[in-house]
Amino acid sequence: MKIAVLPGDGIGPEIVAQATKVLEALARDGLPLEMEQAPIGGAGYDAAGDPLPEATLRLAKQADAVLLGAVGGPQYEALPREKRPERGLLRIRKELNLFANLRPAVLYPELVGASTLRPEVVSGLDLMIVRELTGDVYFGQPRGIEVRNGERVGFNTMIYSESEIRRVAHVAFGIARKRSRRLCSVEKANVLECSELWRQVMIEVSRDYPDVALSHMYVDNAAMQLVKNPKQFDVIVTGNIFGDILSDEAAMLTGSIGMLASASLDDRAKGLYEPIHGSAPDIAGRDVANPLATILSVAMMLRYSLHSEDAARRVEEAVRKVLAQGLRTADIHTEGTRKVSCSEMGDAVVAAL
Amino acid sequence: MKIAVLPGDGIGPEIVAQATKVLEALARDGLPLEMEQAPIGGAGYDAAGDPLPEATLRLAKQADAVLLGAVGGPQYEALPREKRPERGLLRIRKELNLFANLRPAVLYPELVGASTLRPEVVSGLDLMIVRELTGDVYFGQPRGIEVRNGERVGFNTMIYSESEIRRVAHVAFGIARKRSRRLCSVEKANVLECSELWRQVMIEVSRDYPDVALSHMYVDNAAMQLVKNPKQFDVIVTGNIFGDILSDEAAMLTGSIGMLASASLDDRAKGLYEPIHGSAPDIAGRDVANPLATILSVAMMLRYSLHSEDAARRVEEAVRKVLAQGLRTADIHTEGTRKVSCSEMGDAVVAAL
Ligand SMILES: CC(C)[C@H](C(=O)O)[C@@H](O)C(=O)O
Ligand SMILES: CC(C)[C@H](C(=O)O)[C@@H](O)C(=O)O
Repeated sequence: MKIAVLPGDGIGPEIVAQATKVLEALARDGLPLEMEQAPIGGAGYDAAGDPLPEATLRLAKQADAVLLGAVGGPQYEALPREKRPERGLLRIRKELNLFANLRPAVLYPELVGASTLRPEVVSGLDLMIVRELTGDVYFGQPRGIEVRNGERVGFNTMIYSESEIRRVAHVAFGIARKRSRRLCSVEKANVLECSELWRQVMIEVSRDYPDVALSHMYVDNAAMQLVKNPKQFDVIVTGNIFGDILSDEAAMLTGSIGMLASASLDDRAKGLYEPIHGSAPDIAGRDVANPLATILSVAMMLRYSLHSEDAARRVEEAVRKVLAQGLRTADIHTEGTRKVSCSEMGDAVVAAL
Repeated sequence: MKIAVLPGDGIGPEIVAQATKVLEALARDGLPLEMEQAPIGGAGYDAAGDPLPEATLRLAKQADAVLLGAVGGPQYEALPREKRPERGLLRIRKELNLFANLRPAVLYPELVGASTLRPEVVSGLDLMIVRELTGDVYFGQPRGIEVRNGERVGFNTMIYSESEIRRVAHVAFGIARKRSRRLCSVEKANVLECSELWRQVMIEVSRDYPDVALSHMYVDNAAMQLVKNPKQFDVIVTGNIFGDILSDEAAMLTGSIGMLASASLDDRAKGLYEPIHGSAPDIAGRDVANPLATILSVAMMLRYSLHSEDAARRVEEAVRKVLAQGLRTADIHTEGTRKVSCSEMGDAVVAAL
């Protein structure tokens, strides 16, 4: 099984190095894994003048799964739009047809103190956001900035087709079926036609999943309810832009986004796996970043793309063990626990495997 | 000064009745106020087959300010889109050109226990969200659901012109100047051209306000930062859809949305004032709703449209007094405080005036 490893920018290389240690350990134990690295984001621009170099895209297309660190940094912000690191990320999502973005927001019992919410509101939180990732206002045409009636206008197109909604609906219902059998679809159908179609298609697809209870919520209310009582949710499915906003909000409820992984899947369970946090240029190169989100992304990769549920559990178990041992990187460190570096944390997880 | 009073649906009539008691008390003390009622939302549909009846719109146009309760209810959900209560709200905003929606999120010290966030994170919270209200994907053309290539597609247009951005920017900078002189503009300029123009125009307008520090934040990050550290913000300015989501999230940080007012202003400070909460059909007609958000909307009306800062302060002071007296409606009731009905709360505020 071939894994394309794209460290990216900022803390990307450090955290990915820890995750590859974990993969190497699993390979030593007999899992047939092969890894190959390539640059993306700012690193892609530095190496080849392109945030998604041709060779990187080719490698990612050939591979069974992609492991990504993070992209972006202040030195790339003045570049023209097409050259900026984010474009590499958006393009690889689109090119690989990674339409289903799975973002779990899980609160580890040891880390309940990291949340800004009261413990009783968030303890035990375990929700899954399924975000559509290759459609919506992110990719809709027409788009641009132009002069009309003597003044500039900026415009984008929010658009979903029936088939785009249907395929992500199936992913979400499938996940809900394996969890609590409750799925909440989030949109703004009281205002937007795009959302009205989203809701219609969700209802149509729900007929194939009579064992799953589908509910609907407006996005503004969902943003409220996540703060008021996040544990009312189990699986949420939503479009690209609403998912961007709500998944970050949900992640922050845990207070420890250094712990949260994500998967972006196509229709044959090929996927790109990455931590939900960013490239954190301010702490890059100092060996203090938290590699656990990236390591947990490896667990998701093992589960969804490499069909090694056992190995996935081993990795998750190992992460739980190091937390129970009291090891913490700086971002989740509290009194009474032991502060370790990024690489020490990686080593500890490998030892716990 | 003429006030159009539009009670609307659900708890709308009850809470508006308390707010008009307050206005009547001020009129008795010499403020030259005149009020006239008209139906909107579901009540408009029931009375005239239209969520914004012609006569209601005429009254609202003539008036110096509009006081609104809330619209919507389950009995109207099956109506065609154009007849639904929300359409009345969207149309009155557009018809009156109410492009600047001011949504303060304030935590009253007495109510810190109502928040799901830890007290130290939210105590003293006092932020103002300025949401653009008549543009964006809410009103952009083209929009619709149609069949393309043999399948349905739903689409809307996210669009802002330079002049739309500029006028709301001036409102936001003006407010920031009177507060902490910090303004955070929220958009998604790393992905959307519409947001790119938004950011450019904000920077252009900022040259007229050298004493205000302008910062920029992506909407996903803003949704996170509101949970992580809401007190980092003072004034936020954002577009219609992002503002819809973020202002509800911010409101819920206080835990007491029954307390939060809003103002929607045109370019001559004429405004529509309403609580940010909804019509709560589940508790309608039982005299248990919290009228304070509507009463505080009256305070905003006095301040922004009726130019009676003194009267505005008197109303706010009276609300603070009843809270200090320990009076609470059911939504904010806790042990050791006295539970009162909607009308008792209204009477208490009038007495405290
Ligand atoms: C970097 C940006 C383009 C990206 C997005 O908006 O999708 C990020 O916020 C994310 O959620 O992965
Ligand atoms: C009811 C709805 C149309 C409205 C909006 O989206 O603007 C509401 O959510 C609000 O924020 O006032």
